[in-house]
Amino acid sequence: METIKNYVEIHKKRFLEELFDLIRIPSISAIEEHKDDMRKTADFIKNSLIEAGADLAEVKETTGWPVIYGQKLIDDSLPTVLVYGHYDVQPVEPLDLWDSPPFEPELRDGKIFARGADDDKGQLFMHVKAFELMNRTGTLACNVKFMIEGEEEIGSPSLKEFCKQNKELLKADIILISDTTMIAQDTPSITVGLRGLSYLEVELTGPNRDLHSGLYGGAVGNPANLLSKMVASLTDKNNHITIPGFYDDVLEISDSERSDMAKAPFNLEDYKTALDIEAVVGEKGFSTNERTGIRPSLDVNGIWSGYIGEGAKTVLPSKAYAKISMRLVPNQDSKKIDTLFIDHIKKIAPEGTKVEVKSLHGGQGYVTPIDFPAYRAATKAIGESFGKQPIPVRSGGSIPIVSDFEEVLGIKSILMGFGLDSDAIHSPNENYPLFNFYKGIETIPLFYSYFAEEIK
Amino acid sequence: METIKNYVEIHKKRFLEELFDLIRIPSISAIEEHKDDMRKTADFIKNSLIEAGADLAEVKETTGWPVIYGQKLIDDSLPTVLVYGHYDVQPVEPLDLWDSPPFEPELRDGKIFARGADDDKGQLFMHVKAFELMNRTGTLACNVKFMIEGEEEIGSPSLKEFCKQNKELLKADIILISDTTMIAQDTPSITVGLRGLSYLEVELTGPNRDLHSGLYGGAVGNPANLLSKMVASLTDKNNHITIPGFYDDVLEISDSERSDMAKAPFNLEDYKTALDIEAVVGEKGFSTNERTGIRPSLDVNGIWSGYIGEGAKTVLPSKAYAKISMRLVPNQDSKKIDTLFIDHIKKIAPEGTKVEVKSLHGGQGYVTPIDFPAYRAATKAIGESFGKQPIPVRSGGSIPIVSDFEEVLGIKSILMGFGLDSDAIHSPNENYPLFNFYKGIETIPLFYSYFAEEIK
Repeated sequence: METIKNYVEIHKKRFLEELFDLIRIPSISAIEEHKDDMRKTADFIKNSLIEAGADLAEVKETTGWPVIYGQKLIDDSLPTVLVYGHYDVQPVEPLDLWDSPPFEPELRDGKIFARGADDDKGQLFMHVKAFELMNRTGTLACNVKFMIEGEEEIGSPSLKEFCKQNKELLKADIILISDTTMIAQDTPSITVGLRGLSYLEVELTGPNRDLHSGLYGGAVGNPANLLSKMVASLTDKNNHITIPGFYDDVLEISDSERSDMAKAPFNLEDYKTALDIEAVVGEKGFSTNERTGIRPSLDVNGIWSGYIGEGAKTVLPSKAYAKISMRLVPNQDSKKIDTLFIDHIKKIAPEGTKVEVKSLHGGQGYVTPIDFPAYRAATKAIGESFGKQPIPVRSGGSIPIVSDFEEVLGIKSILMGFGLDSDAIHSPNENYPLFNFYKGIETIPLFYSYFAEEIK
Repeated sequence: METIKNYVEIHKKRFLEELFDLIRIPSISAIEEHKDDMRKTADFIKNSLIEAGADLAEVKETTGWPVIYGQKLIDDSLPTVLVYGHYDVQPVEPLDLWDSPPFEPELRDGKIFARGADDDKGQLFMHVKAFELMNRTGTLACNVKFMIEGEEEIGSPSLKEFCKQNKELLKADIILISDTTMIAQDTPSITVGLRGLSYLEVELTGPNRDLHSGLYGGAVGNPANLLSKMVASLTDKNNHITIPGFYDDVLEISDSERSDMAKAPFNLEDYKTALDIEAVVGEKGFSTNERTGIRPSLDVNGIWSGYIGEGAKTVLPSKAYAKISMRLVPNQDSKKIDTLFIDHIKKIAPEGTKVEVKSLHGGQGYVTPIDFPAYRAATKAIGESFGKQPIPVRSGGSIPIVSDFEEVLGIKSILMGFGLDSDAIHSPNENYPLFNFYKGIETIPLFYSYFAEEIK
């Protein structure tokens, strides 16, 4: 621990400068025009790995954005850790809500403000720097492999195929991922459950052109009104999702498990204050943590139709669109939910309209076992660096690829994330506290040591 | 009639070139950055009036965009016609649905394609050219005044005050307006009823920032979902508007009046085919023409929230917006409806949200008498130029200023419009047939002659 702390102390300024350089490249995977930025970022990661001591690092092509593979294999008898992360980031809209430009990282109040500061550039770069630390201080306790993709924010469309084609290369004992949160700086936690995802886009067409809302209003079905009705009908007054069959595969959680979960520190008043809302809204009969942890949900992520500029335009729009995603719990199948959703939307599309639905993104939920070596190693590592045992929690988020890893590679994942809920990932003013960044770099080498011990 | 036809024949090419020059200036009143274009257009109109023979024409300042006033006073004993029109146009979004750039007028299939081709540059310019014709051929039968405003598409916020301040200057026997449609080129009609308008914008705020839809989805009220529910609830399954008190002032139309209206030529199959819809959607118990002519309606003109770009962004948005307008029938008061709407929206805003509503635009409905000189003159003029008697119809559209004219100036209006429903006003590919443009120029001088006769 002394060695680790010393190394971080000496090099912390440089670590941050390097992370800033990584963040400055706007690698938004959803937007095709960032093609060059995606390449640049991939090269940056590759070079960082070599610089940090990898004996091999390369940018590997896929059918989409490339994957960086890196490795340092030191001893066949040691366990192998496969680090997964992603170098792509979310879009930055709405831009006007950012207090500083999203791709010009800025330090304020001890936090790095920028798109990707946490998700996932900040978190993945901790692994690169911890890897450097272990190499330079001669403390590397495991073989290491890296698989850093560029499509996480758009649903990892190419990664499953990449895993299939590189099964042998990716062989490892555990996949180590930092792309989740912990409860608080003084309340570390490990994510043991992730929700699955079905993300679709609905396009509702009424008349074949935008109409004058005076000449036609009242006589022609308005897709903006009608899509609102369709969306509204997807949840009932108890915030239950109304799609037939939607809950069929949801596993009920036992009362004793629910009462265990309820022990995690949570203050509803603080939660509401932090979001500036007077009331929480969710499925009847469940607590806030249960609503995100063990229950599925349905959210409109985007809706648009007609005139959305300044002032008044009296248009009856031809088309209305909604991006709608459902978070799923383990055992719900994302593809099956896609089908249920599409069938239901087609069924409820009102007369006088045409509807198209396409799937944009999806993945299965995941539950990590807590009685296995990697979980024990992570618990010990965090316990040592934070001075407090981590709590196992179920997150509402999704990393769809985690269940694919298990299916294709037969390797389990451990979600040792260092983010905080207040990091505003996917939002304006995304940030990552320096405390968490450096604490992560200190914790990772401990994980390697304890994991090697556990496996021995 | 011979004189008129000859003059139009000789000058028709120039008329069109001049109209094209007028159309090329993008005078979008809703968008502040078109300030210079608004000024340029006002000057263009002023110069056109002088060129056409006005003895006075000037650009008069208001608290908003300027009004062009012009006149030719020939004889105190003759009646005075006040021509009203507007030089501002609607925004052009969605741009990608235009087959040619909106401000580069193009002739295709005998039609002028451009923003403002019909509404109202094409229609108002017929009056300028008819005025030129009467001056040059020495056939002007009435005194003429022009009042051409630049704020019709944003609700004419300054014009009522302008009328109050220029009551003496604007004194006239009739206000002549071409800003409406007729049924078809072979079925001329005169608009005798207009709907009123209440146009408001709703802003619903949930959490104080965009959230990650995985981490928060299911636990925090999503304003996009909730605004959809609010909008959906504004109409019931019979497409009745649910705002309490909304129908209180709606005058029921007698069965005999309804059966008279039903005689106007209308083919529902053609209507559906033209819009490419399989069914019309509207208030139960009323025909399509009744739904726009004698019944109020409620339309979402725009709705937006969250991520509306390419691909998937898993955001739970902080805010959701809707622009919602209601078309009102005569006797419904626009201000009262605004208040009912605002109160209702505030009442139905769900817990966990905050709501703001602002009025963007409004005006009263109007009914033109058909037993008065101007209506008879218009009937004769159209009957002569089209070879067919026009039918009186109630339009679903609104020209809110018409009721203000009556209130402030004490002058009635005659709505002698030459547009067609297929002109796609307010939409991409707005157009105006050359037939209608030239026919309008021929008809207007006949109106002046018959009106002078009627008044004598």
